[in-house]
Amino acid sequence: MPVSVTAAEGFVASGCHAGIKRRRYDMALVATDDRKPVVAAAVFTLNKFFAPPVAASRGRLEANGGRAAAIIVNSGNANAGTGPAGLADAEAMCAATAEALGVDASDVLVCSTGIIGNPLPMDKILAGTPKLAKKLSKDGAEDAAKGILTTDHCPKESVVRGSTFTLGGMAKGCGMIAPNMATMLAFLTTDADVDPAELKTILKSAVDRTFNTLNVDGATSTNDTVIVLASGRRGKPDMAEFADAVHKVCEDLTYQMAKDAEGMTKMVALRVTGAMSDEQARIAAKNIAENNLVKCSWYGSDPYWGRLLGAAGSAGVDFEAEKTSVAYGGIVVSRAGTNFEHDADAVAAHMKNERIEIEVALGLGSGEAQVIGIDLGPGYIKENSKTS
Amino acid sequence: MPVSVTAAEGFVASGCHAGIKRRRYDMALVATDDRKPVVAAAVFTLNKFFAPPVAASRGRLEANGGRAAAIIVNSGNANAGTGPAGLADAEAMCAATAEALGVDASDVLVCSTGIIGNPLPMDKILAGTPKLAKKLSKDGAEDAAKGILTTDHCPKESVVRGSTFTLGGMAKGCGMIAPNMATMLAFLTTDADVDPAELKTILKSAVDRTFNTLNVDGATSTNDTVIVLASGRRGKPDMAEFADAVHKVCEDLTYQMAKDAEGMTKMVALRVTGAMSDEQARIAAKNIAENNLVKCSWYGSDPYWGRLLGAAGSAGVDFEAEKTSVAYGGIVVSRAGTNFEHDADAVAAHMKNERIEIEVALGLGSGEAQVIGIDLGPGYIKENSKTS
Repeated sequence: MPVSVTAAEGFVASGCHAGIKRRRYDMALVATDDRKPVVAAAVFTLNKFFAPPVAASRGRLEANGGRAAAIIVNSGNANAGTGPAGLADAEAMCAATAEALGVDASDVLVCSTGIIGNPLPMDKILAGTPKLAKKLSKDGAEDAAKGILTTDHCPKESVVRGSTFTLGGMAKGCGMIAPNMATMLAFLTTDADVDPAELKTILKSAVDRTFNTLNVDGATSTNDTVIVLASGRRGKPDMAEFADAVHKVCEDLTYQMAKDAEGMTKMVALRVTGAMSDEQARIAAKNIAENNLVKCSWYGSDPYWGRLLGAAGSAGVDFEAEKTSVAYGGIVVSRAGTNFEHDADAVAAHMKNERIEIEVALGLGSGEAQVIGIDLGPGYIKENSKTS
Repeated sequence: MPVSVTAAEGFVASGCHAGIKRRRYDMALVATDDRKPVVAAAVFTLNKFFAPPVAASRGRLEANGGRAAAIIVNSGNANAGTGPAGLADAEAMCAATAEALGVDASDVLVCSTGIIGNPLPMDKILAGTPKLAKKLSKDGAEDAAKGILTTDHCPKESVVRGSTFTLGGMAKGCGMIAPNMATMLAFLTTDADVDPAELKTILKSAVDRTFNTLNVDGATSTNDTVIVLASGRRGKPDMAEFADAVHKVCEDLTYQMAKDAEGMTKMVALRVTGAMSDEQARIAAKNIAENNLVKCSWYGSDPYWGRLLGAAGSAGVDFEAEKTSVAYGGIVVSRAGTNFEHDADAVAAHMKNERIEIEVALGLGSGEAQVIGIDLGPGYIKENSKTS
């Protein structure tokens, strides 16, 4: 049964080991089954130090109005911090893929993920591309899902079968993830018939409410990309149902990424409510979730609400301690900026879960935001302090 | 020989164990030797979740135009997140100190540092206050320096002897330190004759260029306070020399705090140059120094410039990769956003030092800023994930 990117009608995929990594799959290809371009939309990183593949893909979609026949991906090397030579390499990847598939290079999107600062091993990539093209099949989704991974421990895949369409997706990423989308890639395909502008709007909305709420360490990457391809084979969908499906797949992939976050032992659903605006709630939530003392308290299963309020109070948003309250697992532990009598055993029991729910109510307005936070423990440091 | 806060003419100090902590000194008192109020200035935390002692001290200085006869301090409990009861306790500390010294309660400043969210053990504090008053002497500076510590491994003291004045200071703090001044206290005394407004201006300038450049984990505290008392005993100083002395003492205390930072193995002098403005340079420097991936690379002695540029590119300031360069220990490792050929052994040797120097040049303007960054290693997590 085809999963993720080949579940919808009109798509094939493949993955292979080209030799960028020592042993594991390091390249992936997603293409239309008849090699004709289809509607495409994407959301890219906002980091000004963006990588050449981001420039290449973004440029193509801006020029061609939202269309693609294939997406070529390599992992193990981000082709970032590689200057003009890196852009030339990204273009060469598109050209080689176009050649192997018999499509226009302008209809090929390219993504890379991995170490920053080293040039791509183009000999290996150019040798691997025809292999990928040969292997394309409806059963290639799982190989593709493996080919895009870096520090991930497992592939991330998701499928939603709507009443008149199918939408599938694969993603990679865990550490270095924060609004806006750090070092994560996600690829969605659907057989619904949606025009480019509408597809982009729906994608952006879903990304803002899912991937962009995953905050592991406050960093924003050089390479983040989310691309959706729509073959249109099964006709126009109910748009509300379609938008909801895109959100569901992105949400599911986001949770899978959160569970796989570097060194993670606790995943925190952090809600900020009662802010002066949704934007202020978002800023406060981000400041809390990125605060290392807060994250260490999560690692220690410690309901140290004082640190959360300290982070909210220094976020630059409206804040009045006497109007706040903080709850862990629905149990209020602080009101008006001070301790609130509560069942400490019940709170301790909640803190033992892998998934923790925290609400910080600011009591000033009706602005709300939710982020997924990750604890900070020794595993994160171990993973990220190895010499590059 | 009197050190730190009793070095200048006109001041006495003491420290004691009141019982807030198990064994170590947990209270300190600095007072004028004749119990008359002197000129005072202070800089406080900007965190909106500020603690009651901050409110009490800030209110006094605003009301009395910059004057104090004594500063009472306790450690082990921040009296933060304690609501109106906490404010009453802070006021009671001022009243008890005033009673014991025979001064006005409005001339007594109060500071607390330690755990957030628990009420002060007032019985112990009220019992300890008369003891502190009795112990006041010119030899009490070292005891006072101990009485203000929390997770510090050692006291921080500094003295500058100017041509016509002496300036001494003590400080506490290490973790949870970032612009603007997180969980740190510093107390300076001088025998120079300076008026309140000028003293405040000089202090703020010194604090902005020293304590506020120390960035350990991006958090800003609920309790930070820097207070300077000027007895005026030795007359008007050369103001340039005096301002320079204040800067020197603050800088020296800042470095002592940096060396003592929780879990620190690397102290990084990070300079951002060539920004569009000093403010943009400061924002970029802060974003880089707070980035966990950057900090982990420092822990791993890894010159991973790509992460620094990634952090600069997502800081929200003007950034063009092709105009940047990055240098470790004066050796350029990246130019135009890509790798720059360099002596890797020389860079590796520099990275082995406890003090690392890094420059990120943005190549856009002449804005500059410097921060002191700290690496992120297992020691930090161990210290901060214990249950409160």
